[in-house]
Amino acid sequence: MAELPDRVEIHEEGPREGFQIEPPGFSIADRAALVEALADTGLRQIQVASFVNPARVPQMADAAELFAAIRKRPGVRYTALWLNERGFDSACATPAVDLTGNLYFYASDAFSRQNNGRGMQAHAESQRRWVQLYRDRGLAIESAYVMTAFGCNLEGEIREERLAQSLRFIAQLERDEGFRLPVLYLADTVGWAYPLSIRRRIALARELLPHARIGLHLHDTRGLGMANALAALEQGVDLFDASIAGLGGCPFCGHAHGGAAGNICTEDLAFLCEQMGIPTGLDLPKLLEAARLAERIIGRRLEGKLMHSGLPSAAGLEEPA
Amino acid sequence: MAELPDRVEIHEEGPREGFQIEPPGFSIADRAALVEALADTGLRQIQVASFVNPARVPQMADAAELFAAIRKRPGVRYTALWLNERGFDSACATPAVDLTGNLYFYASDAFSRQNNGRGMQAHAESQRRWVQLYRDRGLAIESAYVMTAFGCNLEGEIREERLAQSLRFIAQLERDEGFRLPVLYLADTVGWAYPLSIRRRIALARELLPHARIGLHLHDTRGLGMANALAALEQGVDLFDASIAGLGGCPFCGHAHGGAAGNICTEDLAFLCEQMGIPTGLDLPKLLEAARLAERIIGRRLEGKLMHSGLPSAAGLEEPA
Repeated sequence: MAELPDRVEIHEEGPREGFQIEPPGFSIADRAALVEALADTGLRQIQVASFVNPARVPQMADAAELFAAIRKRPGVRYTALWLNERGFDSACATPAVDLTGNLYFYASDAFSRQNNGRGMQAHAESQRRWVQLYRDRGLAIESAYVMTAFGCNLEGEIREERLAQSLRFIAQLERDEGFRLPVLYLADTVGWAYPLSIRRRIALARELLPHARIGLHLHDTRGLGMANALAALEQGVDLFDASIAGLGGCPFCGHAHGGAAGNICTEDLAFLCEQMGIPTGLDLPKLLEAARLAERIIGRRLEGKLMHSGLPSAAGLEEPA
Repeated sequence: MAELPDRVEIHEEGPREGFQIEPPGFSIADRAALVEALADTGLRQIQVASFVNPARVPQMADAAELFAAIRKRPGVRYTALWLNERGFDSACATPAVDLTGNLYFYASDAFSRQNNGRGMQAHAESQRRWVQLYRDRGLAIESAYVMTAFGCNLEGEIREERLAQSLRFIAQLERDEGFRLPVLYLADTVGWAYPLSIRRRIALARELLPHARIGLHLHDTRGLGMANALAALEQGVDLFDASIAGLGGCPFCGHAHGGAAGNICTEDLAFLCEQMGIPTGLDLPKLLEAARLAERIIGRRLEGKLMHSGLPSAAGLEEPA
């Protein structure tokens, strides 16, 4: 098969991206237990929470407290998300946060306006200030995310030229600010990607930022998440964001029986990689334990498939925990 | 991209494979309504029910009644499943059944014993009788299914040599009985396939039965269903079984929040094909309506993703029905 990577790294988003859209009120103890269970699986990076306006995202109001409650495991990075300087300051003031120098861009102008109150170009320009803020803190620029890199519900499929625009801006920012971007994430924020666009946009990113490692942040909103992951693996992509048990998405919108699916599922993705002969460094039985813990905490059936079927084994299905 | 097919044909299994593992008691009216809704989507073949021992599968005890209740649409085949001559006779006695000359083989010896009370070889030999029975009825041999073509929960991953054994038997049967098999289905009966084995076994099937069209019957038990479908599309496979809303699987086994997932989801697969530029002849909005009807009938959240997110559109998500 085409250029499969030698190994794959998966970064966990469930505690943040998952819990931020669940109802508020889950205990610090439960959420810390989940993070600790995840840290036991071989995951090296776990996004724990976001430092954002508690009036807008009450689920994350106790982010600092959650970080303080976690028994950290050496070798694991416990990261956070922030959207503005205030959030970044809060993160910096929380000792347990492992700070990451991430930049964010948007390929969808409408989505940028809706999320940030300004268009994609203005938001891109604002990233200059972040380069400076990170430098002031002695943080390396670690990655850049291009959100809605494939499409968004407001604009539909985002034309490749828009993505190219974001990528060229990043290349120019590198030259202006004198840094070299280590990682470029193509983020399929609301699940618009499909295998052809995955291939084409990975190729585009490699053309315009040839020195950057490519990462993918995929959503399974329309059922194409795993097919998209396969397409990316076949292009040699070795870095993915995912959520335990497929947390994330939108449980409040949609139909009587629940809303749209969220991030691709960490353990299902790890299983795909392992089945393809690509090591992930992750302990699948422990990932399944963490997924089932998440399900017990959340209290409804979660999206993951492997968690409900168990691992294959010649002696029969793995007994559920 | 590699050899994508020019168009894809999807055969619907939900009414049979889905309802056979749900609790008994769903009304004829509801199940007929679902079949009729499915027939409105462009699907050309729908497996309605099975003619099997009502003591073992009470959900299918009223198969004949269900067939009789359906308002059939011209151009659509309403098929049935049978496991023995008694079931076949019942199907033949039910006027609305569109009979299909299918043969069944097993790559897993243990699974064959569990399902049929005899090993894979003895079961293969029994298919000679079926060739005769079909001939007696004037039915062409339409297809052969190799069940557990990738693995099973009793034997684990089935070695390719076992599959080759089944395929060589079929080739010999063709010569002995003087027919040419039009379609060979590789059936991933309990979800053991992964993209590499998908590719390799399609190649093996083409090597040993070069004149047969290849079809796939995939399960999403462990979350790899759509990745497997993509791998198959990339090998030019143009024929798939699937279930509306991802019906099928095993809701009674597993954890507090439900059991293992089932067949790959008809509408999600159709969406993948359409996104890849491969026409299916199916009406996606109508498929979503049928999926949501299935969900209302069954009364719990079903597995399909697109049904819960809606179709992408530039003006925003399709409004739920």
